[in-house]
Amino acid sequence: MTRQAGCELCELAMPVAWRGEKFAVIVVDDAAYPGFCRVIWREHVREMSDLAAADRLLLNDAVYELELAVREVMAPLKVNVASLGNVVPHLHWHVIPRYADDAHFPAPVWAAASRQTDEAVLAVRRALLPALADAIVRRFEQFQ
Amino acid sequence: MTRQAGCELCELAMPVAWRGEKFAVIVVDDAAYPGFCRVIWREHVREMSDLAAADRLLLNDAVYELELAVREVMAPLKVNVASLGNVVPHLHWHVIPRYADDAHFPAPVWAAASRQTDEAVLAVRRALLPALADAIVRRFEQFQ
Repeated sequence: MTRQAGCELCELAMPVAWRGEKFAVIVVDDAAYPGFCRVIWREHVREMSDLAAADRLLLNDAVYELELAVREVMAPLKVNVASLGNVVPHLHWHVIPRYADDAHFPAPVWAAASRQTDEAVLAVRRALLPALADAIVRRFEQFQ
Repeated sequence: MTRQAGCELCELAMPVAWRGEKFAVIVVDDAAYPGFCRVIWREHVREMSDLAAADRLLLNDAVYELELAVREVMAPLKVNVASLGNVVPHLHWHVIPRYADDAHFPAPVWAAASRQTDEAVLAVRRALLPALADAIVRRFEQFQ
């Protein structure tokens, strides 16, 4: 497996919701965005278009299954999906549940925040995270 | 075809680089980001996971081909790919060539700008746009 020394996504030294040979899924610990998840490709690859065709389809499928898990459990108003990697150029996808009352809506989560979401609302969403972890494990069994 | 009255992406009243039955490709007229492109799904669909499987694969392929066209012509340092749709919840993908000297690098283009790119540099990138349009037409012939 191609690894790059010092790359935090190569090291994958973080709690994962699911870990396979080719990719892992994490639930990001983001205070403002409960249910924010990532799919992290295990090899140090820079762009989607650097992947072999079968791997690209596999990663697209993984992002799709993660979107389904997030929709099923978090019931967001919208899902945002992005592969950026400017800071850490190791292929990973953000899958972010968005709500009308979230910190940036309707702007992207990387814009300036426009509000602070009510703490009680965030607590309700945070309470869904065990169910989200279960849904991820269930949906990703197919990739073993 | 499912359309929603008043949706600007249903209307698709803009110059397109390529237009097919299922999706269109546009080169966005963004002063700070020459080569910024979008794939716009023609039907009014909200999320990737609302698409039928064959359509989802088709749209993933379209984003992939657009990424290749952007890399080939614009030679960016990194490509950013995102499906957000919070403002216009009609499925579309951003494909954005990023450079170390662009207005936001390494932050996402939706963050606060950190610099203004030299106008001469932008002019050189803008001069590539006809070649980008050609590359899109050539690469998207397969989808006719």
